[in-house]
Amino acid sequence: MNKTAVYPGTFDPITNGHIDIIKRAARLYDTLYVGLAVSQEKKPLFTVKERLGFIKQAAEGMPNVRVEFFKGLAVDYVRSKKSMVVVRGLRMISDFEYEFQMALTNRKLADDIETIFMMPHEKYAYLSSKLIKEIVYLGADASSFVPDFVEAALRRKLKKHD
Amino acid sequence: MNKTAVYPGTFDPITNGHIDIIKRAARLYDTLYVGLAVSQEKKPLFTVKERLGFIKQAAEGMPNVRVEFFKGLAVDYVRSKKSMVVVRGLRMISDFEYEFQMALTNRKLADDIETIFMMPHEKYAYLSSKLIKEIVYLGADASSFVPDFVEAALRRKLKKHD
Amino acid sequence: MNKTAVYPGTFDPITNGHIDIIKRAARLYDTLYVGLAVSQEKKPLFTVKERLGFIKQAAEGMPNVRVEFFKGLAVDYVRSKKSMVVVRGLRMISDFEYEFQMALTNRKLADDIETIFMMPHEKYAYLSSKLIKEIVYLGADASSFVPDFVEAALRRKLKKHD
Amino acid sequence: MNKTAVYPGTFDPITNGHIDIIKRAARLYDTLYVGLAVSQEKKPLFTVKERLGFIKQAAEGMPNVRVEFFKGLAVDYVRSKKSMVVVRGLRMISDFEYEFQMALTNRKLADDIETIFMMPHEKYAYLSSKLIKEIVYLGADASSFVPDFVEAALRRKLKKHD
Amino acid sequence: MNKTAVYPGTFDPITNGHIDIIKRAARLYDTLYVGLAVSQEKKPLFTVKERLGFIKQAAEGMPNVRVEFFKGLAVDYVRSKKSMVVVRGLRMISDFEYEFQMALTNRKLADDIETIFMMPHEKYAYLSSKLIKEIVYLGADASSFVPDFVEAALRRKLKKHD
Amino acid sequence: MNKTAVYPGTFDPITNGHIDIIKRAARLYDTLYVGLAVSQEKKPLFTVKERLGFIKQAAEGMPNVRVEFFKGLAVDYVRSKKSMVVVRGLRMISDFEYEFQMALTNRKLADDIETIFMMPHEKYAYLSSKLIKEIVYLGADASSFVPDFVEAALRRKLKKHD
Repeated sequence: MNKTAVYPGTFDPITNGHIDIIKRAARLYDTLYVGLAVSQEKKPLFTVKERLGFIKQAAEGMPNVRVEFFKGLAVDYVRSKKSMVVVRGLRMISDFEYEFQMALTNRKLADDIETIFMMPHEKYAYLSSKLIKEIVYLGADASSFVPDFVEAALRRKLKKHD
Repeated sequence: MNKTAVYPGTFDPITNGHIDIIKRAARLYDTLYVGLAVSQEKKPLFTVKERLGFIKQAAEGMPNVRVEFFKGLAVDYVRSKKSMVVVRGLRMISDFEYEFQMALTNRKLADDIETIFMMPHEKYAYLSSKLIKEIVYLGADASSFVPDFVEAALRRKLKKHD
Repeated sequence: MNKTAVYPGTFDPITNGHIDIIKRAARLYDTLYVGLAVSQEKKPLFTVKERLGFIKQAAEGMPNVRVEFFKGLAVDYVRSKKSMVVVRGLRMISDFEYEFQMALTNRKLADDIETIFMMPHEKYAYLSSKLIKEIVYLGADASSFVPDFVEAALRRKLKKHD
Repeated sequence: MNKTAVYPGTFDPITNGHIDIIKRAARLYDTLYVGLAVSQEKKPLFTVKERLGFIKQAAEGMPNVRVEFFKGLAVDYVRSKKSMVVVRGLRMISDFEYEFQMALTNRKLADDIETIFMMPHEKYAYLSSKLIKEIVYLGADASSFVPDFVEAALRRKLKKHD
Repeated sequence: MNKTAVYPGTFDPITNGHIDIIKRAARLYDTLYVGLAVSQEKKPLFTVKERLGFIKQAAEGMPNVRVEFFKGLAVDYVRSKKSMVVVRGLRMISDFEYEFQMALTNRKLADDIETIFMMPHEKYAYLSSKLIKEIVYLGADASSFVPDFVEAALRRKLKKHD
Repeated sequence: MNKTAVYPGTFDPITNGHIDIIKRAARLYDTLYVGLAVSQEKKPLFTVKERLGFIKQAAEGMPNVRVEFFKGLAVDYVRSKKSMVVVRGLRMISDFEYEFQMALTNRKLADDIETIFMMPHEKYAYLSSKLIKEIVYLGADASSFVPDFVEAALRRKLKKHD
């Protein structure tokens, strides 16, 4: 049976909403792999190393969570972990189109792997890495959206100069 | 860890889409309870006994699937099974509003229980028990929407008289 | 080729939005059948005879529009007209779920018949027979939502007594 | 200028989400009328008198909130209050179709009156009077969804007999 | 009470839909600030000066409308105007996801400021600055989508050479 | 009457979903023009010549399908073909916003031309040229999403080097 699940994403950077999903999924599986998808095409704000560091720091104290990066297809990574479950967060405000396309496309690529959607706490329903970056760039305090160490890093990278 | 999951519903009657979700969920858990929610307020077409019979017949050959009815709250039923997972199907064409309201309300009632959404095969994306009843009433052949024994029962209950 | 199309519905009563779709579809086909679906289960406000009368009056001056009622499945009615096209209006504010379910279910029942969706003029985007009935019942003037003869009939059936 | 706004609804019963909107709207206007729409057609669980009582109790300590019932069209009620603003809550999970239809229909009936949509706190995003009634009927504790006095009343009306 | 509201946006360029919202909001408040958000990251077609000029010309004859640009967070700009109301247009066809995320994020940044959503006239339901630019680039006449002076400017910037 | 319809798009590259729509529309019209929209602004993966070649190869054996490219507005192209019908596919998972905006904008530009929406087979509901390119870039086999000759071309353009 499915002892292992994978939560893939780009996590640029990890938000409190991602962390909520990690906590919820970690309760449901013996091992949860948080898989940072590395793509040369997208231009992330944070490096792979920085993003991995953030996720690891956020997952401290969750003994059954492993944090890794992967290249290539998510389904290949899932298989390499002997898992058959992809976890995705589905907010009330979500890009359903993209999530459903990806889930059905992954199923066509690997029929033995299921995507399960979990809902984050409703207080994270509006969080988006993209929007957080935009408002920090404009000077906002993001400490209620991301962990403190991510907020500090965002500020260093994005804060406007006085 | 979560060896047991519960798939609650009214199943009036069970469709090929429900059966697809049962198959997919049964692969992910040691035991899957299909829980028929009995409510005095709704006026189902089929009796509880009939509906249980259909589900059991559909689940033949799936050794880790148990079929039961329950009264009261779904979360109480889930707890009574020592489970922490509610499975729900989420079609591309879905009543998201109702599903999300129910999932978040259930979480408020029982914070330790998670709803996971799974997608049925896209070929079942348009199936709805309500619509199937409507078209059989109008004379349609529903054999591509429900198992044969359900189609026969629908026809007996709903088919127009010649 | 498709010289004939069918626009099915319950038209209880016909609104300016329905009439807009009839006009648009009538321009695209040699013959357009407006098919009033008769169902014993639904409880319409107007009788079949009244509703047919309204549609016919609304379609006056459209020589290639035929108005009929039908019983049973829409796809059977479409076939009886040697047509392969079902026309449905799709407003920006629509019950997509129902429309898509019906279209895909109809396709499964009759693979040779296509549903085409047309958009009414945006000024009719918010019209709904149900809402019109509600507000006329509460005393509203519906003359900008339905033809005058329908407004008069609605008033007779629904207007509150002084 | 708009010193007065109206928040119409059926409030059967009032939820914490409604109360959140009342608080937010009361901050924006000199006077906020909460207008209980009385309709003979709908079958509410609570009487007009009970529902008015709940709203008044919930609005205690909000000096600029008036609680009334009205018959007929909402726009006529709004005009009778010399107001030009209808307030409606718009949850992330909402019946957009109905809300938009109603807003545009009201505009057609009264072009001088605007509907403004406000978002309740995200923690109320999933609240629905209908769902609350369903789960209390099944035995749930609704004290995190409605005020205590409403919960007690719901329990009296709906709680299953032991 | 809220005598002042702010309507922020990028207005690149202002459309008839924006102008409709400005007119409606100006009727509801003593003073309406139209705030042009200046961001170095986005690459607008028109300069800040051009866009301000278009808005001012469009708002001629509306004595209680002020047109300004601002840098930084919208909520900070709103506070600097002693306002507590952000106005946003919500079309039937809208980017709800973005609007709701922004509204809830703004609330977290400034709990005393409310976003109110207003619907433009349905005849502007389909207008989008982005789409207008695309079609003018392809040679379309945009005079029914934007004021004449904006259409002329668009043509100068975008029209294909003969 | 409408003997001719036009199916415009960028087809970068054509997918099995596009081909399904072409087949369905070709059955409804005497002549169907598949019109490849050429825009200098978008950066397609395949050249106009390549994309035309793919469409022509996919449409082999459909005698009433013509494949062409066009510059400028789709409605002008439609008129040049003496057609009054634009065909667009509308998947359950779709960018409704964009499709509806485009349809209503086209109507404003050319009131005599109607957009009709057709649904592809539900098995293509999740196909997107963009997502297909992403996953082939990551190493996936796309042979169930596109014709073989397109898959081979995608692989040549996108496949990661070993």
